[in-house]
Amino acid sequence: MDYGSKLLENLVDEIARLPGIGRRTALRLALHLLRQPESQALQLSEALRRFRTGIKRCKHCHNISDTDVCTICANPARDHATVCVVEDIRDIMAIENTGQYQGVYHVLGGLISPMDGIGPEDLFIDSLIERVRQGGIREIIFALSPTVEGDTTGYYIYKQLKDQPVVFTSIARGIGLGEAIEYADEMTLARSIQNRVPFDQSLKF
Amino acid sequence: MDYGSKLLENLVDEIARLPGIGRRTALRLALHLLRQPESQALQLSEALRRFRTGIKRCKHCHNISDTDVCTICANPARDHATVCVVEDIRDIMAIENTGQYQGVYHVLGGLISPMDGIGPEDLFIDSLIERVRQGGIREIIFALSPTVEGDTTGYYIYKQLKDQPVVFTSIARGIGLGEAIEYADEMTLARSIQNRVPFDQSLKF
Repeated sequence: MDYGSKLLENLVDEIARLPGIGRRTALRLALHLLRQPESQALQLSEALRRFRTGIKRCKHCHNISDTDVCTICANPARDHATVCVVEDIRDIMAIENTGQYQGVYHVLGGLISPMDGIGPEDLFIDSLIERVRQGGIREIIFALSPTVEGDTTGYYIYKQLKDQPVVFTSIARGIGLGEAIEYADEMTLARSIQNRVPFDQSLKF
Repeated sequence: MDYGSKLLENLVDEIARLPGIGRRTALRLALHLLRQPESQALQLSEALRRFRTGIKRCKHCHNISDTDVCTICANPARDHATVCVVEDIRDIMAIENTGQYQGVYHVLGGLISPMDGIGPEDLFIDSLIERVRQGGIREIIFALSPTVEGDTTGYYIYKQLKDQPVVFTSIARGIGLGEAIEYADEMTLARSIQNRVPFDQSLKF
């Protein structure tokens, strides 16, 4: 398509590189910005630049942060002896959103996946092992995807650390609250029977 | 949701102001840019800034342009005596895409819509009237939406210019090529019967 403007074509090219956004949507967004006050496009442009150049990773847990240590690691009210291991910072946001977790985190930045050429050395695993070896951590909670990659990654870390005085746990897998048993997949249902809990405990929420 | 970073929160806020993009998608896009090389986010930021501050409107037809006169108006091979009146620059792109039109355009920038508080003075109608009065234009083709607003706008312009030595036409409304008659809406079907064309003309493409 001929856009009649190199500036527009260039912007459409750049927007269309984002995942899930095609050239038609990119054009619609560009023309929308043209109708809005100039300040809106400039604020978006500036927010992008400042985010990408200014964002840091927490030196303890690799969560994104505006400072060297993220707000969670810097919070003395959190339980620094409990570390929840997650794949991605979005997992932190989801868990924080529940308001039920008081420990700290460790972001791996991905999962071991030989198919995709991702090995342990591509992830923040060494720094987790170092954190545990320095002492003070009592429990490692794995909150990883219930996939081959998630299980492989958890097991790899477990093997490296199993001699340390640390308890390893994994978040519970089972039938979601409000989910009908008849529609649950077989794997989930099977594991929810294997990992059954005392009835009085299942009522607590 | 707590993003743990003001830079991220600010970017999510700005992306989520775009039409059709919610906060969850905005977060996904922001985190995608974090995984890509820094240059991608900076190129997008720069493309946005340059587009919004550098883009001009053609002084003849109000099409967007990188220069004072757009590439279509500046092209001596186009038929400058035929002007196609459209609502939006996206209409120009759609018509140009057909490769069937050799005339020039006039972008109104919207349609008259009292409901939305848009009157003739909010659109580029005066400049169209001025273009016609200066002479040299033989035909005005209305390519406006088949809505009350489109009809109102076309009729308003027609009234202003009907004493000028100009032929007024409208793009044909009818059953789309490849569209089944049984599924066409009544209004379109009715108009396609009223505006029927000689059979041998209907075969030309």
